Amino acid sequence: MRAEILAVGTEILLGNIVNTNAQYIANRLAELGIEVYHQSVVGDNAERLMQAYDLAFKRADLVITTGGLGPTKDDLTKEVAFEYFGKKAVLHEELLKEIEDYFKKINMPMSENNKKQAFFPEDAIIMKNKNGTAPGCIIEEGNKILAVLPGPPREMKLMFEESLVPYLKKFQDSVLVSKTLRVIGLGESNVAEIIDDILENSKNPTVAPYAKEGQVTLRITAKAENEEEGKKLIISVEKEIRERLGISVYGEGDITLEEVVGKILVENNLTIATAESCTGGLLGGAIINYPGISKVFKEGFITYSNEAKIKRLNVSEKTLKNFGAVSSETAAEMAKGAALSSGSDIGISTTGIAGPGGGTKEKPVGLVYVGLYIKGEVKTKELHLVGNRQRIRNMTVMRALDWLRRELISRYI
Amino acid sequence: MRAEILAVGTEILLGNIVNTNAQYIANRLAELGIEVYHQSVVGDNAERLMQAYDLAFKRADLVITTGGLGPTKDDLTKEVAFEYFGKKAVLHEELLKEIEDYFKKINMPMSENNKKQAFFPEDAIIMKNKNGTAPGCIIEEGNKILAVLPGPPREMKLMFEESLVPYLKKFQDSVLVSKTLRVIGLGESNVAEIIDDILENSKNPTVAPYAKEGQVTLRITAKAENEEEGKKLIISVEKEIRERLGISVYGEGDITLEEVVGKILVENNLTIATAESCTGGLLGGAIINYPGISKVFKEGFITYSNEAKIKRLNVSEKTLKNFGAVSSETAAEMAKGAALSSGSDIGISTTGIAGPGGGTKEKPVGLVYVGLYIKGEVKTKELHLVGNRQRIRNMTVMRALDWLRRELISRYI
Repeated sequence: MRAEILAVGTEILLGNIVNTNAQYIANRLAELGIEVYHQSVVGDNAERLMQAYDLAFKRADLVITTGGLGPTKDDLTKEVAFEYFGKKAVLHEELLKEIEDYFKKINMPMSENNKKQAFFPEDAIIMKNKNGTAPGCIIEEGNKILAVLPGPPREMKLMFEESLVPYLKKFQDSVLVSKTLRVIGLGESNVAEIIDDILENSKNPTVAPYAKEGQVTLRITAKAENEEEGKKLIISVEKEIRERLGISVYGEGDITLEEVVGKILVENNLTIATAESCTGGLLGGAIINYPGISKVFKEGFITYSNEAKIKRLNVSEKTLKNFGAVSSETAAEMAKGAALSSGSDIGISTTGIAGPGGGTKEKPVGLVYVGLYIKGEVKTKELHLVGNRQRIRNMTVMRALDWLRRELISRYI
Repeated sequence: MRAEILAVGTEILLGNIVNTNAQYIANRLAELGIEVYHQSVVGDNAERLMQAYDLAFKRADLVITTGGLGPTKDDLTKEVAFEYFGKKAVLHEELLKEIEDYFKKINMPMSENNKKQAFFPEDAIIMKNKNGTAPGCIIEEGNKILAVLPGPPREMKLMFEESLVPYLKKFQDSVLVSKTLRVIGLGESNVAEIIDDILENSKNPTVAPYAKEGQVTLRITAKAENEEEGKKLIISVEKEIRERLGISVYGEGDITLEEVVGKILVENNLTIATAESCTGGLLGGAIINYPGISKVFKEGFITYSNEAKIKRLNVSEKTLKNFGAVSSETAAEMAKGAALSSGSDIGISTTGIAGPGGGTKEKPVGLVYVGLYIKGEVKTKELHLVGNRQRIRNMTVMRALDWLRRELISRYI
């Protein structure tokens, strides 16, 4: 079965709202093993809506619409659909009563317009709306199926899950099972090169890469008769990818980098302190996002000024004078100072030029040093980042966390 | 001129990502006075992509694509477009050099695949990609125009604004002029109530409210022959809104709360230090996001543990014992301690229960205290926040900054 998603609403065409409904439905259809080749958006316009139905049913067996079920004259999705199928809509008394009850429940007067929402063809399968006033419907005509859902996401999602999914089960012959691997420290094209043959030749499961904010995500998707079969199909491809990308795969599913790092620290009872210049607290903020980190996070120093670097972290004036605040030497002393001053096993530091001002030819915007002290040993790393101030700061946090992760794994895992 | 937006990418069809690009482009085209009747999504598939071009150019004069410009074989948007127009792509040496330079700058090896990104027809208008490796292009053929943009939003937006918008100016007959007012400290329904008649009755300009992450944005949009006329239309409505909402309007356009606060601090030469428990550096991180803040930001203390609160901020053991770390009393001592220990005019502190664990009946998850010391005077504020750990921490930062803003305005402006 092939489906198509049609969002109806001038507010989407004008860019007033993001079409998150399409993403939700697409994702769920994929999980149900129903193929989607097209998504479209059309405005609240009878003529173009009619054309949109026509086009969609030429390309797909199942068309799912969202939006345009409201009480005003602008809302045409249902009316044009009934016309498209040559069906007459009649008042469904029990639906009218439910709409009236809904208004009583929320203690608001019902407007005459809302009556429109109780009109459907006699043979339509009605889908109730438990979060609003607009019911939806399913219309079967020959081998074509139209499912009409409301626009507001909370109404749409509940109706989709409670009414449409059970209806669709009878058409399912397969399911899609997915697994996501999270990769850091390699660019998208690097990853693509390393696993080129896998990306190219894998049919079931398929492997798709995408890049986001300095990370790459690999989605492995298997089509199978049931979930268990799907999971089995994924195992060997996953193993191969993990072998080739090694430590660059930092986790799977929805896990974050700070969760991975936080877990290693807590499990190994390693205490940590941060010393931040250019990131100004964001590194500490990220580490602390892991619940349970309080056991090992001793403290953080936001030492934006030289004065604070000297006073809190014991960075030597000489170092600052000879090498500058943005230098490998300063980063090293900051990391060491954070650890010693707080009595932590680990100290991690950042110092760099986040811009937009402050760059020179020798030390351009985007030059960042990260310092890492682990139980007596100090290392530093030089980064060259691009982007605006915010991005440089965020990338610094990510790269610092990843480096810490790699160093911890090589020592403790 | 009529435009159509075509997003290319199997990851959108599968619902892996939300098509925010379509919303951005639709919104900007509306502002430029260019009509959009259709948005579509198609996967990385040559045949269907070809059909999508054909359909889009039957319905529109200008087709804007996003996505599918990556270095891998899956990325077909450009290649199919050139085929559709019967144009031969050749290697643009200067683009290749720029791609090579980009990789040098970010200190990553360039893969052989990336060469593909420098191929364009000889007569294509090239749009540079300052945030990535994939250039875009504009192709004019008869009275049809194709604009090809990359998929990653930061790359797409910059290219759209810097290259496509200037190109499109020549086709504009009317413009939409918008102004955004940023509101904090009032909920969306509050704002809607206070300016109900304005939202209801304004036709040109229109006023539309949106709520996002604890803030409300009001977008005033006027349609006019030119920008100057549009700006004139906006003035009186803006004035009326500002009068009614008062200090809750913290800025306009893309300004952020931290920028507003940073400016007041720098202009009044007020030095500041932060002391953070539950926000763990995010408050410092936000304040430091304002470039130029280094003049007044003395330092920040991430004192997650009681030990650090005592040692760095001079919080008394008695206070911690009698009232707990999450208390108005501790927040006050933290703020004062941060200011005095760093020699700053202002100290601002956070302490609270961000969850998911750690809540009790008396001190539930979401209870947060903010402390504020300004030149000898200490105040605290109790917040009751909802949401997950991350949201509670982010809302704390926002509320703390807004409180600081209001206190600074009452004293210094």
